[in-house]
Amino acid sequence: MSVRVPGCELCESPGGEVLHQGTQFRVVLVADQHYPGFCRVIWRDHVKEVTDLSELDRMLLMDVLWQVEHVVREVMQPEKINLASFGNMVPHLHWHVIPRYTDDAHFPAPVWAESKRQPSAASLERRHERLPALRAKMQERLSTYL
Amino acid sequence: MSVRVPGCELCESPGGEVLHQGTQFRVVLVADQHYPGFCRVIWRDHVKEVTDLSELDRMLLMDVLWQVEHVVREVMQPEKINLASFGNMVPHLHWHVIPRYTDDAHFPAPVWAESKRQPSAASLERRHERLPALRAKMQERLSTYL
Repeated sequence: MSVRVPGCELCESPGGEVLHQGTQFRVVLVADQHYPGFCRVIWRDHVKEVTDLSELDRMLLMDVLWQVEHVVREVMQPEKINLASFGNMVPHLHWHVIPRYTDDAHFPAPVWAESKRQPSAASLERRHERLPALRAKMQERLSTYL
Repeated sequence: MSVRVPGCELCESPGGEVLHQGTQFRVVLVADQHYPGFCRVIWRDHVKEVTDLSELDRMLLMDVLWQVEHVVREVMQPEKINLASFGNMVPHLHWHVIPRYTDDAHFPAPVWAESKRQPSAASLERRHERLPALRAKMQERLSTYL
């Protein structure tokens, strides 16, 4: 039985383009024009903190996170991966996986800081062009995660 | 043999008040007046991404992170835990564990966003008063992590 909370954005909507739907989690691609390749791993149940999960569930969630990091690195070739789990606004366990580049809008600050520059259209276009490969690789890599 | 890079802040300095020193990692308390209880888990070696670690090392690092989250929750009683690993400025693997409160300087935004308010001196003082307990509990909880 799934644990859902009425009014919770991540209980009631996918939170992005679903790349893989598991039984207990999903992986979505975030529609962020400045951050192509930004993915989220979202736990199905409305759980607040990682340490609220059982050890087995936590291992599954984190294993999926490493698979996602692996694919994002391979396909998007970022300067750095940024990982974060906040949940201050939506206290429903989810992880952000963000490929970062030295010429992106906030580098080297986190993407939640004030913007430092307008990234070049050419750089962004090159990254957007990788999204079909990202979708395909993610689906392939996660195909055995039920 | 440890992997150190000259000039790297986290290779050359502790990065905070050391609460526990393991063989392959350390846990430090960050001196942030606005965020008492802010801890970091820092990998000893100069490794860039979580997925650069072996599976065994990754399991150790993440297990330590959950222990730290557990103690910070127990002692600091935050509204929410925020976890993040960026490394854009210092590409030496480290995790931020930040106890968040509805009246803190940035809530519900991440602490890297623009500040929203000046937290009350009384609230901050109550949180600072918990630091001796945090030090003691962290040391106790991690004592078997060599």
